[in-house]
Amino acid sequence: MGKGRLEAFSDGVIAIIITIMVLELKTPSGHSLDALRAVTPVFLSYVLSFVFVGIYWNNHHHLFQAAHRVNGLILWANLHLLFWLSLMPFVTGWLAETHFAAWPVSLYGIVLLLTGCAYFILSRLLIAHHGPDSPLATALGRDVKARTSLVFYVVAIALSFISSWMACGLYVAVAIFWLIPDRRIERAVGRGSD
Amino acid sequence: MGKGRLEAFSDGVIAIIITIMVLELKTPSGHSLDALRAVTPVFLSYVLSFVFVGIYWNNHHHLFQAAHRVNGLILWANLHLLFWLSLMPFVTGWLAETHFAAWPVSLYGIVLLLTGCAYFILSRLLIAHHGPDSPLATALGRDVKARTSLVFYVVAIALSFISSWMACGLYVAVAIFWLIPDRRIERAVGRGSD
Amino acid sequence: MGKGRLEAFSDGVIAIIITIMVLELKTPSGHSLDALRAVTPVFLSYVLSFVFVGIYWNNHHHLFQAAHRVNGLILWANLHLLFWLSLMPFVTGWLAETHFAAWPVSLYGIVLLLTGCAYFILSRLLIAHHGPDSPLATALGRDVKARTSLVFYVVAIALSFISSWMACGLYVAVAIFWLIPDRRIERAVGRGSD
Amino acid sequence: MGKGRLEAFSDGVIAIIITIMVLELKTPSGHSLDALRAVTPVFLSYVLSFVFVGIYWNNHHHLFQAAHRVNGLILWANLHLLFWLSLMPFVTGWLAETHFAAWPVSLYGIVLLLTGCAYFILSRLLIAHHGPDSPLATALGRDVKARTSLVFYVVAIALSFISSWMACGLYVAVAIFWLIPDRRIERAVGRGSD
Repeated sequence: MGKGRLEAFSDGVIAIIITIMVLELKTPSGHSLDALRAVTPVFLSYVLSFVFVGIYWNNHHHLFQAAHRVNGLILWANLHLLFWLSLMPFVTGWLAETHFAAWPVSLYGIVLLLTGCAYFILSRLLIAHHGPDSPLATALGRDVKARTSLVFYVVAIALSFISSWMACGLYVAVAIFWLIPDRRIERAVGRGSD
Repeated sequence: MGKGRLEAFSDGVIAIIITIMVLELKTPSGHSLDALRAVTPVFLSYVLSFVFVGIYWNNHHHLFQAAHRVNGLILWANLHLLFWLSLMPFVTGWLAETHFAAWPVSLYGIVLLLTGCAYFILSRLLIAHHGPDSPLATALGRDVKARTSLVFYVVAIALSFISSWMACGLYVAVAIFWLIPDRRIERAVGRGSD
Repeated sequence: MGKGRLEAFSDGVIAIIITIMVLELKTPSGHSLDALRAVTPVFLSYVLSFVFVGIYWNNHHHLFQAAHRVNGLILWANLHLLFWLSLMPFVTGWLAETHFAAWPVSLYGIVLLLTGCAYFILSRLLIAHHGPDSPLATALGRDVKARTSLVFYVVAIALSFISSWMACGLYVAVAIFWLIPDRRIERAVGRGSD
Repeated sequence: MGKGRLEAFSDGVIAIIITIMVLELKTPSGHSLDALRAVTPVFLSYVLSFVFVGIYWNNHHHLFQAAHRVNGLILWANLHLLFWLSLMPFVTGWLAETHFAAWPVSLYGIVLLLTGCAYFILSRLLIAHHGPDSPLATALGRDVKARTSLVFYVVAIALSFISSWMACGLYVAVAIFWLIPDRRIERAVGRGSD
């Protein structure tokens, strides 16, 4: 089975998720700078979630560049990833409206954790489908980077009840950590096409 | 006529349907766990509808993998399917807000039934267009699986006035029943390309 | 210039237009059949607009099947078409909420008229770009069908102040008139590829 | 790395941005012409923003027609452009609801300025990736047009506190200035393929 429609559908869903989050940015009530300032927490949480969804699109793009074919199970693993990702607008909204309270901050981490797990499952299924000697398998290896982020999310979830700001700091750290594109796959794909 | 744009347009519409349902998940009023708990029925109905829309995307993907060309009638049969599918966010919202009351549960089933019929019409038109000896026709056969689900929907619609939970149980059963990808087509496509 | 991205972008915009109209279908207040019945005018106007947007997607699909290349002017003519089409959710909402009052019904016709004009301009620019002897030019000819619908819209706009139901009847008539796919292009494309 | 998914994802995001702005056009309260007239400022700001987003799609389309490959940095530069563009619905809504007050008009300019800068960064990165002798580099040159618009935005932002109408006039001027498609790239691509 070709990967074309899986990519197109994922692009569509991720494009919508990343864009409808902006609907949470309600028009300020008033035309002054103060009215605008009240929107700051919503804006900050929008930036954070935009970056996270952008990271997932980026990684999804890299992952399927190295993958060549899919099966029914992979279609569902991909929908599973999109499901958790689709909860981002909801948790982002709660985060912003409660001004980064403990439960919303921890729920944000739980959704990030489950999205991370879904991405991990998807990548393992792709490796299983392409074989342990495929460029994809070599490129991802044991995927220490993905495993490390999952640990960070768990720590942040626990931290959110002590200090929600430290938990948010951890989310920002993971985001910066992933902003650097996954050169492993670029390199492996380059090598594979040599 | 090629199938490229029909697939792209359907991917777009289904991606939007599956994602705007999350807008029904309104931010909880408060930052406590109790405030979050109040969202549970909305969340459960979102999961159910996400799975159903996912199933339709999956089956649509499989169906058009085996199909190679379309005509004007098939374009409209596809739009007809998208029309009923587009009512999912509406019926899901009503289901959730009324906490699974009788009429909303039965309307949910009616929309599922009409979507199922639309899918059935679309698949029959594709078979007619590709001929009775095409891999598509062989793969789908009499399509007992699709016909059985239609019967399940009718039973659930009737049941919803006796016990809305039993009706919902039937919807969940049909969803699980379809979660297993349609290997018939995968196999037939594989055979066709041999 | 290739037509690939123009088609992809138009598919995206039309998919969103056709789907966000369903957001006008607000959850009924109550779980009875009466509560659902109150949604009827919104549902009817949704069906009408879904069919109109579906017709435009269908015709756009046919038009660009016969077209092979575009230029900067055609990109803007296409955006012009998408602009008027993007007002459909707005006029549909007004139509429904005022229960088909005179001004909303006439504004609906005005938007249909301007969308029709934009489509006509787009098709003429495509003919000019492909030459008067291209399959596209032969297929469309003087395009009596498109011209006739424009006249119908003008009549309906005038009628809406006498009887808004007669005006709506005319809209339905035009919709039925266009539901039959444009076989002229299918035939011409078929001939062109012989 | 191919540019296919970057184009598809950008098309998706831009299609959603351009379309959800219409959700700001709330149904008029009443069925008279006066009720409709109250929507005028929202409509005007919608037209302005539709044209600006349309310009960006158009230029993006031209830019990537001349580009052939991308890297991880370009993916992020593109997401950076989409981020500022995604704020258009928010600033458009504020502009409209405050009837073009000073701060909203200046914020509109700030978002346009940052979107312009993001586009400029993206185009420079693409030139760096394709080499200084590529058709893309020759076509864009020093890009006086893009630089001039940035100056115009800065002037308009300052002007908005003296006269918000003059600032809006400048935005309209820039929009008209860009409505003419970028023939430099069309010519260079034509020359490159000779």
